[in-house]
Amino acid sequence: MELMYINTVWIVLASAMVLFMEGGFSLLEAGLVRTKNAVNVTMKIFVDLTVGALAFWVVGFGVLFGKDQSGLIGTSLFGSPQLISLPVHLPGAAFALFQIGFAVACISIVSGAVAERMNFKAYILTAFLITVIIYPISGHWIWNSNGWLAKMGIKDFSGSAAIHAVGGFTALAMAKFLGARKGRFNSDGSANVFAPSNIPLASAGTFILWFGWFAFNAGSTLDVSNASLAPVAINTLLAGASGGAVSLFVTLKKYGKADPSMTINGILSGLVAITAGCAYVSEWSAIIIGAISGFIVIYATLFIDNLKIDDPVGAVAVHGFNGVFGTIAVGLFDTSHGLLTTGEFSFFFVQLLGAVVVIVWGLIGGTFIAKVCEKTVGFRAAEREEEEGLDMSYHGIPAYNELERFTDIPTSLYDFEETTGISIAPIMNKEKEMAR
Amino acid sequence: MELMYINTVWIVLASAMVLFMEGGFSLLEAGLVRTKNAVNVTMKIFVDLTVGALAFWVVGFGVLFGKDQSGLIGTSLFGSPQLISLPVHLPGAAFALFQIGFAVACISIVSGAVAERMNFKAYILTAFLITVIIYPISGHWIWNSNGWLAKMGIKDFSGSAAIHAVGGFTALAMAKFLGARKGRFNSDGSANVFAPSNIPLASAGTFILWFGWFAFNAGSTLDVSNASLAPVAINTLLAGASGGAVSLFVTLKKYGKADPSMTINGILSGLVAITAGCAYVSEWSAIIIGAISGFIVIYATLFIDNLKIDDPVGAVAVHGFNGVFGTIAVGLFDTSHGLLTTGEFSFFFVQLLGAVVVIVWGLIGGTFIAKVCEKTVGFRAAEREEEEGLDMSYHGIPAYNELERFTDIPTSLYDFEETTGISIAPIMNKEKEMAR
Amino acid sequence: MELMYINTVWIVLASAMVLFMEGGFSLLEAGLVRTKNAVNVTMKIFVDLTVGALAFWVVGFGVLFGKDQSGLIGTSLFGSPQLISLPVHLPGAAFALFQIGFAVACISIVSGAVAERMNFKAYILTAFLITVIIYPISGHWIWNSNGWLAKMGIKDFSGSAAIHAVGGFTALAMAKFLGARKGRFNSDGSANVFAPSNIPLASAGTFILWFGWFAFNAGSTLDVSNASLAPVAINTLLAGASGGAVSLFVTLKKYGKADPSMTINGILSGLVAITAGCAYVSEWSAIIIGAISGFIVIYATLFIDNLKIDDPVGAVAVHGFNGVFGTIAVGLFDTSHGLLTTGEFSFFFVQLLGAVVVIVWGLIGGTFIAKVCEKTVGFRAAEREEEEGLDMSYHGIPAYNELERFTDIPTSLYDFEETTGISIAPIMNKEKEMAR
Repeated sequence: MELMYINTVWIVLASAMVLFMEGGFSLLEAGLVRTKNAVNVTMKIFVDLTVGALAFWVVGFGVLFGKDQSGLIGTSLFGSPQLISLPVHLPGAAFALFQIGFAVACISIVSGAVAERMNFKAYILTAFLITVIIYPISGHWIWNSNGWLAKMGIKDFSGSAAIHAVGGFTALAMAKFLGARKGRFNSDGSANVFAPSNIPLASAGTFILWFGWFAFNAGSTLDVSNASLAPVAINTLLAGASGGAVSLFVTLKKYGKADPSMTINGILSGLVAITAGCAYVSEWSAIIIGAISGFIVIYATLFIDNLKIDDPVGAVAVHGFNGVFGTIAVGLFDTSHGLLTTGEFSFFFVQLLGAVVVIVWGLIGGTFIAKVCEKTVGFRAAEREEEEGLDMSYHGIPAYNELERFTDIPTSLYDFEETTGISIAPIMNKEKEMAR
Repeated sequence: MELMYINTVWIVLASAMVLFMEGGFSLLEAGLVRTKNAVNVTMKIFVDLTVGALAFWVVGFGVLFGKDQSGLIGTSLFGSPQLISLPVHLPGAAFALFQIGFAVACISIVSGAVAERMNFKAYILTAFLITVIIYPISGHWIWNSNGWLAKMGIKDFSGSAAIHAVGGFTALAMAKFLGARKGRFNSDGSANVFAPSNIPLASAGTFILWFGWFAFNAGSTLDVSNASLAPVAINTLLAGASGGAVSLFVTLKKYGKADPSMTINGILSGLVAITAGCAYVSEWSAIIIGAISGFIVIYATLFIDNLKIDDPVGAVAVHGFNGVFGTIAVGLFDTSHGLLTTGEFSFFFVQLLGAVVVIVWGLIGGTFIAKVCEKTVGFRAAEREEEEGLDMSYHGIPAYNELERFTDIPTSLYDFEETTGISIAPIMNKEKEMAR
Repeated sequence: MELMYINTVWIVLASAMVLFMEGGFSLLEAGLVRTKNAVNVTMKIFVDLTVGALAFWVVGFGVLFGKDQSGLIGTSLFGSPQLISLPVHLPGAAFALFQIGFAVACISIVSGAVAERMNFKAYILTAFLITVIIYPISGHWIWNSNGWLAKMGIKDFSGSAAIHAVGGFTALAMAKFLGARKGRFNSDGSANVFAPSNIPLASAGTFILWFGWFAFNAGSTLDVSNASLAPVAINTLLAGASGGAVSLFVTLKKYGKADPSMTINGILSGLVAITAGCAYVSEWSAIIIGAISGFIVIYATLFIDNLKIDDPVGAVAVHGFNGVFGTIAVGLFDTSHGLLTTGEFSFFFVQLLGAVVVIVWGLIGGTFIAKVCEKTVGFRAAEREEEEGLDMSYHGIPAYNELERFTDIPTSLYDFEETTGISIAPIMNKEKEMAR
């Protein structure tokens, strides 16, 4: 009975930490994009946590964990995830809460790659489609005990495949269909790099993400009697540390300067890559996996640039490529069936198959979303909206208005409106009217 | 015995999270006010966590949880909250720590509504009066097992009434007596809206508040054997999500733009509204309660504007109005005695009475504090101080000094002093002297 | 058996919180230094969490907790900290994770004092030397059960001596050898104060640090059956609160303005000072210890200025001086052997000896690091690098690029490079090339 109590506390706290990672995504992205789109990325994360969380709770959870149909899809528990019966001593409500955190993370991965030029209404639709269809279906294959990949024996402890790779490749397809931000690539094929607007903010996001990741990975034990709980946590630290160290040293060595956004993405890559295997590999394997991911993120970033696909925050390189690598890495380093550790081939091929499946599924999903958005609310922001910045265009407010002391920037948005001709958040006009 | 251990860990961690919410209040408010007052709101939160925490520990805790006198007030445990004997297996020290987090939150609610024009010394006095008198007395009525409202059967699990409504209506009275910020309302009755200085900062505060709210609500179980622990946590998520979703969609629908500060306040409203009922209502009721709160916050904001009361961050609409709504909502949705769920009237009236009581008590409390401040240290900042900004006036330092690279803003505050004639933090002059 | 489970959850969560404190250090320092060095302090914290964490895991842990040699040094467990056998029911992996958080904190203390003028490669070397030699050796003396100070009966629950004082005095020696930032002291002996770049960011760091500190101190119980867990947590709150209150009131009283950075450092001082004694002193003693630390930090800051040693964030006053005071305070206030509480002298002298030892060891360690850096990669940044700011010099990117809307600052770093002649992060040039 007391096991139930400990598990409840553990998973409720882990869930809070995983949901707090949304704050990490928000600050990371707001720091990496240009100022004029910092509010918009923040609002998208709020969409994830509101629309996405509700949609997954009502529908997606049932698709993922409901009664299995042919290994493909779940068909029960809609609107009542808490009624799930679990093989561990844990209330369904706690499990549902934790799983909402996972679903929401999957959308937030996408949000970064489509930043700075996507129609806001299309993003709301995206959040809905990912949480009710894209993520839970492939999640069902991997994590529902009757899913077809699960039955083949795939191991994806906390979702390098089910969350990160699916999110990352959905993001890749969407970024491709969306096209690059205006001015990102020149007609001669060269690229322009837009400076991140706020590095300390991006770093704050990174620290929050790393903090939450301990719960993201170790929470998947669900049961504190699982002896891998502490090893999972230390593997999470070690892989993030070695991913970040490699990115830092590679940029320092090759270019003479230690690059902040690459270091951040190296850390996140190590975390993504260990997410599948954290419960299955040794500490030293975790360090090696992290280190490899630190190389992958750099070359994947350059590769995606070469494809002329515009990913403002590097989400595809971090979550897509390293999600895939992390999935394969379990096949290599698993202590009981890994190719490198035991010489066993069959398990490795299951992991490889899983990796291919999530890549294909993500690309299909992203394409599907892009098409649905195009045919309904419109996928890409209008050119004028993009140039103006999505903050003013969609939310009527700039991210920072810190300068009133030192510049002529008006302290009242009304003056702003008058001076610039850009319309401000109409709630304020309503206030103005009603106040009369 | 092991129950004691689990409870201790649970409540110590929950307390840390609740106290971390002060960081959330600080960033939220610093982001929503104008730059020239961002340091001041931060310093007020530090006052809450230092003066307020100590005052509640020494005095307020005893008023709230001490030996009851006539159902009105507690009279023991002063200076030794840890000696309380509890009906659950939990050390008094852990309980006291958790309760300090609650008391401090109550002051921080007030801090937002009085931002940008209050005398800093008056705020210190306010923090003291709220933690030793206002909050613990009505808290005693509701949460001390011998309190008169408690005896009538009021249900207020984590304090929609005892914390949020009391704080919100104290704030309303104080904001009324304080008067509006200079330039907020025009002589023709129309209002000016001052642009928030830093939306990413405000969003960071929101994420921290939401993170802490899981502990704020679920921590009130005090005992992990309470089966509502996990349901409380998921209700907290669902209500926040639906509150935010409604505010987002209403502003998007009515005004064409999804408003960031309304979305933030919608999320917080959902959280406030579910705080009383989180342990007593179903998941779907939580979603409905959150959704209603998302409407309430918008119209309450307009209503308060109409009263020409100036609440820079919307604290009254969020905490006051939705604290009251949340209290009443238990009477409507309680699974065993709710009016809508069971048709029972008597319990509903108890909740209604409780709501009226905390409104009246909050208004009395706020008026009392305003009068005490007026007669002692002075309530409102001097006009010159307000115009200059409270940061330079009371703390001798601007919030942001990021511009030295790009502008002529001096990197040394001494130059700043010389250029502008505004005096800087004298600790620095002391350093200068002593360094000679 | 279930004790093992609770302990595992407790220490894994506590570790995550302690490691999250790195985010606190990062934001605090980025907010307190000048804008042009805000990226660099952030990158240094990433060095701590990557290079430092790995180095401690591979080497330092064994030096601290490995098989003792003559009370001086540990010599086992290299590369396998998880194999440690503990006297409590706790997996070695959880213990190792928690201890990494401690080691990393020790470096981060140093990072603040050497900010704004240190060679970045030298900092990487410093992180390595502190985690493999300086911190674990004195840590061995105090915390390894066979360490010579441990055998004498020193009490240092969570490391006022072993972490904060060692880090603080290492920092003092390094800051001394490094010399002051250009322009900090005038030839006539007077000092210039550089304005902190971002007070809200610094406050965010403070809230994160305080949040993590509950785990930093209470986590050292390692075992939830330790009855001091809850008292430790409340002492941590009370000491931080009284430290901050004193600093706030002293600056308000003496200079007429409540100083934000002093209030922050007062809070941190209270937390540092209670770190050794949190499990051994009463609540009222915690308040007194915190209050004294709030005075100490003010006068220590002025004292260090007088020595013409430049500590941009006050790390020496906070961690060094109050780490020493906290160590001695156990000798004064320990409930069973304190000089003031029991009249016993012998224990007080052990604590005094410990304090002297860590001061001397820190000064030796800092000197050693300075000399090693000087002879290898170079200790101090070049004059041009310092003037330009370490952000552009070492990382090719400014902290904030928020101004593109309002000024002529280029949105593309390429333009930035062309306009200013300052070279940007070459990863971007690589991207540019490869994208061709």
